[in-house]
Amino acid sequence: MPNIKLEIEYDGSNYAGWQVQPAGRGKTIQQVIEKTLHKLLREKIRLIVSGRTDSGVHARAQVANFHTRARMPLARLKLALNGLLPEDIKVTRIKEEEPAFHSRFSAKSKIYRYTILNRGHSSPLLRNTVYFYPHPLDIALMRREANCLLGRHDFSSFRASGGKDKDPVKNIKKITVAKKNGCINIDIEADGFLYNMARNIVGTLIEVGRGRIPGGSLARILLSRNRRHAGQNVPGRGLCLLKVNY
Amino acid sequence: MPNIKLEIEYDGSNYAGWQVQPAGRGKTIQQVIEKTLHKLLREKIRLIVSGRTDSGVHARAQVANFHTRARMPLARLKLALNGLLPEDIKVTRIKEEEPAFHSRFSAKSKIYRYTILNRGHSSPLLRNTVYFYPHPLDIALMRREANCLLGRHDFSSFRASGGKDKDPVKNIKKITVAKKNGCINIDIEADGFLYNMARNIVGTLIEVGRGRIPGGSLARILLSRNRRHAGQNVPGRGLCLLKVNY
Repeated sequence: MPNIKLEIEYDGSNYAGWQVQPAGRGKTIQQVIEKTLHKLLREKIRLIVSGRTDSGVHARAQVANFHTRARMPLARLKLALNGLLPEDIKVTRIKEEEPAFHSRFSAKSKIYRYTILNRGHSSPLLRNTVYFYPHPLDIALMRREANCLLGRHDFSSFRASGGKDKDPVKNIKKITVAKKNGCINIDIEADGFLYNMARNIVGTLIEVGRGRIPGGSLARILLSRNRRHAGQNVPGRGLCLLKVNY
Repeated sequence: MPNIKLEIEYDGSNYAGWQVQPAGRGKTIQQVIEKTLHKLLREKIRLIVSGRTDSGVHARAQVANFHTRARMPLARLKLALNGLLPEDIKVTRIKEEEPAFHSRFSAKSKIYRYTILNRGHSSPLLRNTVYFYPHPLDIALMRREANCLLGRHDFSSFRASGGKDKDPVKNIKKITVAKKNGCINIDIEADGFLYNMARNIVGTLIEVGRGRIPGGSLARILLSRNRRHAGQNVPGRGLCLLKVNY
């Protein structure tokens, strides 16, 4: 039974996140794609995703796979899917994988980017994809503190309640803080992310950059394994899943 | 009577362009800003703009000025304006100018950017700010042809009917065609633009790049001063007013 891998770009602004929700919480990206696949393949499809994204969070290349009995040439399936999918969700790549391929368990790492618009006024053209934060931030300090998070650690301090992941130990392989065109991009590559981990890390780095948490605190916060020591969560709209590595 | 200059960023997706329209054509950016100024300054305000933009067209830095009897500190006026303006229109700069300053007549040149998304699939994240064109384009040829337009010419071939500008002679000071991240950016700097001129030039360059108009045609089309010889107009959403030089 073919195992089909999709790469998906989406603007999460109008969705209640990736995962199918209890009724009444708004439509989700998973729902929209599964319904479209159902219509095309005349078969109930269940997508396996690399990792669900929250309400408002975007993806440049989310990965999901599904098993199907249907036999449709993949180029045709891609065209048909994109013809039916709404403007804010599109399949950018489609490929048949080995039977054992699993979007989540086969992933070696994921890269998320958080974008802070750090200037005096908000941006109409970027408003759905950045977090507008007008106060001055010490980027060099944020970068130094971010480096404390590199490697394998228990990230419980940056985990929101409600996550289902049992293992709080994750490996951050790379974390960069870069300023470009008035925006600060914080890129985090890890083998896995706890619930809200990326956004809690960014929120904490912002408080360091603003001078509200003293420099040198990140290592202590990480060791404390206490969510209350870290900074506030930042809004979903600034977050984008850039890539999943296999 | 103070003469106030505004720099304005807007996402034109939800507007019927800049200029106040006859009733029933949808709200315009000018209307929204004038109403907000009226509310704040308790005075009827008429904005003078560097050049109106069409439906769907964006601006990173549109310029408009107005004369007022009101005396409000400009930093406070900017804050108050942005507090009342919708998310898709914001004032990025405010400054008092000399009495003779006129957003349109004082302008030395304007720079427009047209962005073509040139790859096999459309982009949910860029959908409101690019024109998706999936067919291969010969960028080197487009660049060579674009160079024929440099300098002072009668641009009647690229003028849509309905424009009010009496002088079809404009000076294109710079025109560049650059590929970046799957997008082709066409930047045009000129001392003035006829109605739809930028979009008609881009439409013609696309037909050259696609091979539908042979290379070497641009000079001939320009000389013909006949709109029917040029290519089709391209959608407004790919166009953005980047800068007005004074």
